[in-house]
Amino acid sequence: MRALVDDLRRDLPADRLLLDPDLVTGFVHDEAEWAPHGTPCVVVRPRTADEVQAVVLACVRHGVPLVARGAGTGLSGGANAIDGGVVLSTALMTEIREIDPVERLAVVQPGVVNDDLRAACAERDLWYPPDPASAPWSTIGGNVATNAGGICCAKYGVTRDYVLALEVVTGTGELVRLGRRTAKGVAGYDLAGLMVGSEGTLGVVTEVTVRLRPRREPEHTVAGYFSSIVDAGRAVTAVGAAGLTPSALELIDRHCLSAVDRWKNMGLSADADVVLLGRTDAPGAAGEREVEAMLACFEGAGATWAARSTDQEEADALFAARRLAYPALERLGPVLTEDVCVPRAAVPEMLARIEKTAAESDTLIASIAHAGDGNLHPLLITPPGDEDARRRAQAAFDRIIADAIDLGGTVTGEHGVGLLKRDGLRAELGPVVLNLHRAVKDALDPHGILNPGKVFSRAPGAR
Amino acid sequence: MRALVDDLRRDLPADRLLLDPDLVTGFVHDEAEWAPHGTPCVVVRPRTADEVQAVVLACVRHGVPLVARGAGTGLSGGANAIDGGVVLSTALMTEIREIDPVERLAVVQPGVVNDDLRAACAERDLWYPPDPASAPWSTIGGNVATNAGGICCAKYGVTRDYVLALEVVTGTGELVRLGRRTAKGVAGYDLAGLMVGSEGTLGVVTEVTVRLRPRREPEHTVAGYFSSIVDAGRAVTAVGAAGLTPSALELIDRHCLSAVDRWKNMGLSADADVVLLGRTDAPGAAGEREVEAMLACFEGAGATWAARSTDQEEADALFAARRLAYPALERLGPVLTEDVCVPRAAVPEMLARIEKTAAESDTLIASIAHAGDGNLHPLLITPPGDEDARRRAQAAFDRIIADAIDLGGTVTGEHGVGLLKRDGLRAELGPVVLNLHRAVKDALDPHGILNPGKVFSRAPGAR
Repeated sequence: MRALVDDLRRDLPADRLLLDPDLVTGFVHDEAEWAPHGTPCVVVRPRTADEVQAVVLACVRHGVPLVARGAGTGLSGGANAIDGGVVLSTALMTEIREIDPVERLAVVQPGVVNDDLRAACAERDLWYPPDPASAPWSTIGGNVATNAGGICCAKYGVTRDYVLALEVVTGTGELVRLGRRTAKGVAGYDLAGLMVGSEGTLGVVTEVTVRLRPRREPEHTVAGYFSSIVDAGRAVTAVGAAGLTPSALELIDRHCLSAVDRWKNMGLSADADVVLLGRTDAPGAAGEREVEAMLACFEGAGATWAARSTDQEEADALFAARRLAYPALERLGPVLTEDVCVPRAAVPEMLARIEKTAAESDTLIASIAHAGDGNLHPLLITPPGDEDARRRAQAAFDRIIADAIDLGGTVTGEHGVGLLKRDGLRAELGPVVLNLHRAVKDALDPHGILNPGKVFSRAPGAR
Repeated sequence: MRALVDDLRRDLPADRLLLDPDLVTGFVHDEAEWAPHGTPCVVVRPRTADEVQAVVLACVRHGVPLVARGAGTGLSGGANAIDGGVVLSTALMTEIREIDPVERLAVVQPGVVNDDLRAACAERDLWYPPDPASAPWSTIGGNVATNAGGICCAKYGVTRDYVLALEVVTGTGELVRLGRRTAKGVAGYDLAGLMVGSEGTLGVVTEVTVRLRPRREPEHTVAGYFSSIVDAGRAVTAVGAAGLTPSALELIDRHCLSAVDRWKNMGLSADADVVLLGRTDAPGAAGEREVEAMLACFEGAGATWAARSTDQEEADALFAARRLAYPALERLGPVLTEDVCVPRAAVPEMLARIEKTAAESDTLIASIAHAGDGNLHPLLITPPGDEDARRRAQAAFDRIIADAIDLGGTVTGEHGVGLLKRDGLRAELGPVVLNLHRAVKDALDPHGILNPGKVFSRAPGAR
């Protein structure tokens, strides 16, 4: 490790290296509860692609594992440090290089914060859709690594749908450009798309070219209150079956509502056991029709109350409650965020199974969901320091993953595999498809230095 | 080859094999002019994934190259037969297995014709958007192999945007499922997306799960007549700069118009040197606004006439002329279809350079274009049997490719690399990125039996 650090001192300006343990400790894990992490030998904060390349080449020379990280808002341990390895932080790579309204694209360094890009685009009447809940803090590079989703992706797709091109340092230290700046293109394999969602195991992204959309129409919000989470799930299925494509369709259960109430006193949980929030940005009369049709779906599924939000402030308060659910629950104890995604028709059954699992494992499981996508976030809360509760919650976590696979779903809709979903991934893909993954990984990272031990890749020393 | 054919006779029903040279000859090339082809030892028409797997395993055992083909409507030679190899035709794999309105997906065998899938979806108020000009004949498997585009992809994206999952036989003969049935999912690498557009070099697709949309609103059509192709190109750039996203924006030049007129007597070329056809499917008042804004862009760029089409019949006739351009030109001699794609802002300059190239090389170059995407299809026509004209056209073809790269574009927007764009691909990607492609290819097709010699892969015997 000494020799590696000496190389980095030689190749990079001194301010790029963090060696002080007090500083290093801020870069050793993401926000995933329960995921283990190691202690790196150094944290490097490069500013340019050339500096990233120098770091990767040093890691290749010395056979040291490299973990790249953005803001560390991940929820699966994908950016957790490895003992003796290098952590490469993109914290200083925050340049928005270009926003082009004619080509409808932006070119950014990976450390640009999602909301900063969105704000810069909005100034030019443009819109970068992917809106993970972490958007005020998470970076475009991190969003690319996990193929982040968000609230509007029910209608507008996920990060991969917006990545046109990437500049990447490969596992052999070569700096390459993948993808294109044109609206279409089929010259060669979609290696840019392959990099998206690969969680730092295939390359380190040094620049991202994203596709933009014109600013969209204002949204209308509808809310439905339900007395059972399964009724709310049936409303979600009905919205899909009715041919509607809401620009958001979010579910918040009673545990979240009451946690938000206890914290912020918003008076939500008095009226509803479960709230469903729908939005449409269809223009004009089409938007009116979608509002009416969504309300009809809510009512047909047994909503105890359903209405269009008449003022923007009220609508914003409802979505604010959805965003506050996570921090409100964290006040009760460590929160482990699940991220299964099931077919839309299986949403009611999956929600019922989660309720059953909560009861059987005596675990507090709150639920928020990008319900329109079938992407459920059961939140498992354990009292701090209660080891027995922790064991029961682990069993519930495993049960939820098994149920999602059983219903034709996936173990991770948008958070990534990281460390927490390695077993789930193995169960979902099976050995033959995992071997294809290994073949691709070995082809692009032959030295096995890029984020080893994550997703499906071998831990350091296990090669 | 004898031993391979014996194996296939043993493993497959007799009617799956074509050995009669008169029958085989219908499967040796696609529609790409100038692309060479060989003579296969056998054409196999499997019905099931297991039969496809048997064919691939036989090719692996005997080290014989395998070319998969759909309807043979390709335009780059990607499906052309290799001497002594096997051609696998998906002609008998035409089952539409499932159309699910709640999950908004369809599951089809690869030999299903694009228009047949679209018709089956329309019966359930669903829509499969990718609409290549070949849609009445080309297959979903072929569309997947080339990542086919079409007219509506200016707004709705290309084939890859609609592929949720694939069943594939890999180069080692393993039958695997890639992708998912859920709206979102990040479990592992996007290997399904990697297969799309890989032109048969990474696997043989045996089943395709595509994403669907609800039936869309009826379209409005606007037409603009221009006295110069560069003015029309400026109108295209203006539409993008105005924040409009038309559901189609097609360009037809005077050569195409007069060829259609000479054939069908539609009276188009008397009025216009170049026609631009725009469409919008935005609902209600938003659609009206898009129509007006598009007309303003046309007029601002110097249109000699621009108007909204007042009746559907007239609008359909204009798009029919666009679809008739290719067969109309074929009456003049062999047509080589170019497929460059440039940034939207470079459309006027690229069109000007193509005109200059046509003049300098004394070659008839007609142009149709998915102009809204910057995807231009210059059509090079040579009199049959004129070898000198053919040489001049080849030089023009090379010039157009070089100009597209020079303007920041790509050598192929939607037709694929096949045989015709191998040199262009090399120039576009450069050696380092090509090596990444080779590493991925070798990882998934270690025996090099899948469509060798196409795209960038080594020809048989060149390993």
